[in-house]
Amino acid sequence: MENGELDGLRSRIREVTLELLRKIKERNELVRRVGQIKERIGMEAYQATAERELREFMVREGLELGLSPSLVNGIATILLQDSVRIQSGKSQGLTHMDILRRGLELQRQGVEVHHLEVGEPDLGAPEEVREAVAAAVRAGYARYGDSRGLPELRRKIADRLREKFNKDLDAKNILVIPGGRFGIYLALKILVGVGDEVILLDPSWPAYRQCVEFVGGRAVGVKTRLEEGWRPDLAKLENSINSSTKAIILNYPNNPTGKVLSKKDFRDIVDLAAEKNITIISDEVYYDYSFGERTSILDGYSAKYVVIQSFSKSFGMTGYRIGYIVADEQTIGKMASIISLMITCVPEFIQHGALKALEMGMTPAKYSEIMRRRMEIASGELSKLPISFYRPEGGMYVFPKFNGGNIDTMQFALELLEKKGVAIAPGTIFGGYDSFFRVSLGASEESIIEGIRRLGEFLSEKGMA
Amino acid sequence: MENGELDGLRSRIREVTLELLRKIKERNELVRRVGQIKERIGMEAYQATAERELREFMVREGLELGLSPSLVNGIATILLQDSVRIQSGKSQGLTHMDILRRGLELQRQGVEVHHLEVGEPDLGAPEEVREAVAAAVRAGYARYGDSRGLPELRRKIADRLREKFNKDLDAKNILVIPGGRFGIYLALKILVGVGDEVILLDPSWPAYRQCVEFVGGRAVGVKTRLEEGWRPDLAKLENSINSSTKAIILNYPNNPTGKVLSKKDFRDIVDLAAEKNITIISDEVYYDYSFGERTSILDGYSAKYVVIQSFSKSFGMTGYRIGYIVADEQTIGKMASIISLMITCVPEFIQHGALKALEMGMTPAKYSEIMRRRMEIASGELSKLPISFYRPEGGMYVFPKFNGGNIDTMQFALELLEKKGVAIAPGTIFGGYDSFFRVSLGASEESIIEGIRRLGEFLSEKGMA
Repeated sequence: MENGELDGLRSRIREVTLELLRKIKERNELVRRVGQIKERIGMEAYQATAERELREFMVREGLELGLSPSLVNGIATILLQDSVRIQSGKSQGLTHMDILRRGLELQRQGVEVHHLEVGEPDLGAPEEVREAVAAAVRAGYARYGDSRGLPELRRKIADRLREKFNKDLDAKNILVIPGGRFGIYLALKILVGVGDEVILLDPSWPAYRQCVEFVGGRAVGVKTRLEEGWRPDLAKLENSINSSTKAIILNYPNNPTGKVLSKKDFRDIVDLAAEKNITIISDEVYYDYSFGERTSILDGYSAKYVVIQSFSKSFGMTGYRIGYIVADEQTIGKMASIISLMITCVPEFIQHGALKALEMGMTPAKYSEIMRRRMEIASGELSKLPISFYRPEGGMYVFPKFNGGNIDTMQFALELLEKKGVAIAPGTIFGGYDSFFRVSLGASEESIIEGIRRLGEFLSEKGMA
Repeated sequence: MENGELDGLRSRIREVTLELLRKIKERNELVRRVGQIKERIGMEAYQATAERELREFMVREGLELGLSPSLVNGIATILLQDSVRIQSGKSQGLTHMDILRRGLELQRQGVEVHHLEVGEPDLGAPEEVREAVAAAVRAGYARYGDSRGLPELRRKIADRLREKFNKDLDAKNILVIPGGRFGIYLALKILVGVGDEVILLDPSWPAYRQCVEFVGGRAVGVKTRLEEGWRPDLAKLENSINSSTKAIILNYPNNPTGKVLSKKDFRDIVDLAAEKNITIISDEVYYDYSFGERTSILDGYSAKYVVIQSFSKSFGMTGYRIGYIVADEQTIGKMASIISLMITCVPEFIQHGALKALEMGMTPAKYSEIMRRRMEIASGELSKLPISFYRPEGGMYVFPKFNGGNIDTMQFALELLEKKGVAIAPGTIFGGYDSFFRVSLGASEESIIEGIRRLGEFLSEKGMA
């Protein structure tokens, strides 16, 4: 008898499911008509406000109907994504990768290329760190270990941070990661569900946007402007927050602008996040490259946070792939289980190198001084050209704008590479800053000076000077 | 006027969306009633066949309505997941992690623990490999590099495979990865969308199931049986395939059973996958630990494949976190962009170690011989106990079954650890093999013999002998 009842219910579920699909079809036809109107009046397919309203409407009504919010949010995301797909059919043109690829091709052909595009300092790890790793490998420190990292390394990191920021931190707040990128991924993976939103302050490092999309979220860019000294507009930021906003990524000293926020501006943003119960992901990998004021979310702020740190810049350990996360114990636990699933742990002998690095107290200051000097030189050279830029307070990049009308920097960068052997990163990839470009200070002083000189030459030849 | 039309359409979209939510509510109530009946008659909430039928019904009807299959599949997944949530409220009891944690606690308290649970051989990397890594670190081979891996390493891997399998392989078919786990993740991430299914031949390494779920897919276990010598039943396998099935994971020599398939059985499975257009993910990290017959999907089979290989077992390089994937160029490209996003690349100096390892031609044979010897010893000792097991043809594990009625091995393993200081992995975690347990041969001969002796003692004391 119960089997009969079961069959009856199941066939009824089918009917209702079919009715549900018909409703989706009906909805899609309406969406398509909206798309046609948008196209006529030149409106973009993706409209943040309209989407937010519809999502909130769905969650509200869903709650009233007794549906779980995660179910409704999931359905909303799928429907909204499909709507954008229905309404737009954009294809991509030239990308940053084309420039990178072409640069390597030219080099293979024997052309001298000045690399002002890569985010890697040429400093290298200190001798002592190399020796420590070599000794650890030889001694066989290469077994599966704690996915959170070596206890002594986590303790030492926590000790240092406690000294520096007078904050109650412990080994349980630290997670050793294979580089800053992986930290960004972990933070987003545990904070952001499908359809959730993450706010970026543009211009921003392209990996943020890629990674938000990779975990199924949506990146919402809040533009900052050169004319305003790259200071975020708090009202604009607040207006971009909605019930789906899960995190704001801060990155100061900034890649690409070199901006360092004042403590007051930093606090305003963090307070807003705290008020809205949004996590701050603070990417502080350039912290040691601060030339004046220094800001860190660890410095007595109140919002929930995940700090991303790395040994790449402070200790020139780029290719070692090691960094760390600072967060609450529960967050660290969730992230550790992802590390455990994906890579077991960061190789132990590399962690021994990081331990040694932390003993090399003077290295970050030394490397920072090199960057400050390069920044001075680059700023001096760049100020001779017909471009405008904000003088960086930290980091390892300058982000100038061409004077005069709009320029397709992607095309410009490719031509500059072809004709002058100078590689720069076009502003487009940092969140649509079409008339900007990024100059990196990872190369030697000579290469920076020569690269900028050739850039000036090229501008003259193009009649842009 | 157009704005008025837009507003009208948008309010109509809201109405239809609301009707859609009401349909979901109606559906949920039916689902709840099905759940009540299932509970009464002792049926599980998750029913593979019923789900598959409903999903296929939805996709079919959706196509007829002109809806995109990805939209419908996404909606189906969310509804089906919610259905299982509505119908079951299971909580988990004791887990494998409790045993691991307790083992470490005991050790810290000074208790001698025989580790027959961990999947890590104690062999260590050859001296020459350690020296190669140490030299590379010292020389500063630690810059950002190609996310696919060093060209010379990929070329050498491809050369070796070409020699071995007489297969048309090139550097473009190779991707260097930070360990086998990451390979599994990459393969699943690019092959499996939300709601897609992956077939595992149980018993299977728990990471497969975890990783399938991690990427949003569903793991479908096809049980193999000790009584059938762990040979997969082809008809059962075929019956588990549906339109959502994207991959079958093969792992021979097998963890945990030590089974190696005959070439004929291997071919039958691969042919079935080829026929159904399903990718084989072949985890061959224990390939070198084959004591008799050797099977690899590279050995002239026809299905689409992704091979996972690692230096961990063949060269004792567990903690180095390095392995590689063999696949078609397009697949490698997709995976490389994930590596690029998440970790940039595997540290260059570690890749130099792998290069050296490939020159150490005799190491895999030497390590394999050690494992074969341990297997003989362990099999001999285990056969004195009141348990049944399949004599492994490869790998580094034995997977015995207690004679007599059902046993809660999770509880058994915890007690064995507490009372006798022997850690084993309970069969439950390999896909619900409750009366089984896994003995690992990663420890020394002495530790294996003593561990098994104590296990026998414990069985006697429990009256199970």
